[in-house]
Amino acid sequence: MQKNIFIVYAHPEPRSLNGALKDFAVNHLTDAGHNVEVSDLYGMGWRAEADGRDFPERDPHERLIYHSESKNAFLSDTQAPEIKEEQEKLRWMDAIIIQCPMWWYSMPAILKGWVERVYARRFAYGVGYHGYERFGEGNLKGKRALLSITVGPEAEHYSERGVHGNMDDLLFPITHGILYYPGMDVLPPFVLYRAAALTPDGFGDVTNDYGKRLDGLFTDAPIPFRPQNGGDYDEQFRLKPGLSKGKSGFSIHRSD
Amino acid sequence: MQKNIFIVYAHPEPRSLNGALKDFAVNHLTDAGHNVEVSDLYGMGWRAEADGRDFPERDPHERLIYHSESKNAFLSDTQAPEIKEEQEKLRWMDAIIIQCPMWWYSMPAILKGWVERVYARRFAYGVGYHGYERFGEGNLKGKRALLSITVGPEAEHYSERGVHGNMDDLLFPITHGILYYPGMDVLPPFVLYRAAALTPDGFGDVTNDYGKRLDGLFTDAPIPFRPQNGGDYDEQFRLKPGLSKGKSGFSIHRSD
Repeated sequence: MQKNIFIVYAHPEPRSLNGALKDFAVNHLTDAGHNVEVSDLYGMGWRAEADGRDFPERDPHERLIYHSESKNAFLSDTQAPEIKEEQEKLRWMDAIIIQCPMWWYSMPAILKGWVERVYARRFAYGVGYHGYERFGEGNLKGKRALLSITVGPEAEHYSERGVHGNMDDLLFPITHGILYYPGMDVLPPFVLYRAAALTPDGFGDVTNDYGKRLDGLFTDAPIPFRPQNGGDYDEQFRLKPGLSKGKSGFSIHRSD
Repeated sequence: MQKNIFIVYAHPEPRSLNGALKDFAVNHLTDAGHNVEVSDLYGMGWRAEADGRDFPERDPHERLIYHSESKNAFLSDTQAPEIKEEQEKLRWMDAIIIQCPMWWYSMPAILKGWVERVYARRFAYGVGYHGYERFGEGNLKGKRALLSITVGPEAEHYSERGVHGNMDDLLFPITHGILYYPGMDVLPPFVLYRAAALTPDGFGDVTNDYGKRLDGLFTDAPIPFRPQNGGDYDEQFRLKPGLSKGKSGFSIHRSD
């Protein structure tokens, strides 16, 4: 079935591995009959810094309270046009793919700035009663999300006891905090280790693996994060006693 | 004893709580006889996007491999001047204070982009044999780091079982991944919850608490992260069996 797929891509060099993965995904998904839109953040000259320029009609002498202005501008349709365009792509899409390298244990700043600016209040947060339609509910509910990320070192260094911290937990602020927050079903990330050592010969194996993940975009099982309002959390949003017994850290917020 | 203290401050509004905390720290530390330098990232117009402009003398037609160019430009003293200036402040300082709000479970993009650009290869990483002088060793060893961060919601929502994930783990990619990596001793973060609800009356309590943390900048005990090369990790940088028994997640990388 034909779907709408939105790729947000963040790498400064088109001839990079990230660029090749983005191109591969565009071709693979288009060949499968889907509609694909790409936001190439570096190519677009995306501004990463969230500030008063995001609200062109505000009084520049007033104290800037970003989340308030974000709500006002979103509701009055006076956001900076590039923000509105990205929100429209998020409404349009059935699935988002985020393609980026891991830099300093997170996404590149340009992509973080895309989140900060595009995730307006009332659009991506502050939705529903007291703003608490989130983590399984929200305006992006029913859509799917896949993070495809490249990492320099070996997988062992990011394993359960690896010195960098384990990869699932390093990505939790993105998978749970950015993608699950506004309601999306988040697939297990596609993580490519030893990215710098990848040779053209090895790319065939990678695209084979990645192609399977793209084929499963609408059928693979998402990460079983616990919905905030499904009965697992108390009135202070703490996981109720007895759930996730014997676990600690971020993994308690998964029901598997 | 007089020390050099470097405050990196990231908020778009000078009249914000973050601005007030930055001003308080400058006055408090100056009154105590220290030398204080501030990098006001929004005020300086800091560019967040890491890209080829960081290396003004490279051939713009060559494929950009950021970490290689970063090393080349650092070693040949051809980095963009604003990068070099920030590195000189990092060399000069005895302690760094990072003052920012938490946005989407991490630091603001403008600050993330400061890390990506200023943390050059051979300066902040890729140091020593195989680049493995890190996590307790590195060019910033012996210096101290304090993260002072403001958070909108209540502390309970970020407690051990809080829905957002617990705060220690959310900050681990910064405290361990960005501050401990190049060798600094990292103090427990100063986290201010319910930032938006803070009234002028409440600010006195806050500055009282924060003042104590500033007074303890060189005497408080740092987070007991495990040094990578101190014998706790195996040759694949995995924590050796038997250490941190009964723990899981990021907390295994602390020896307490």
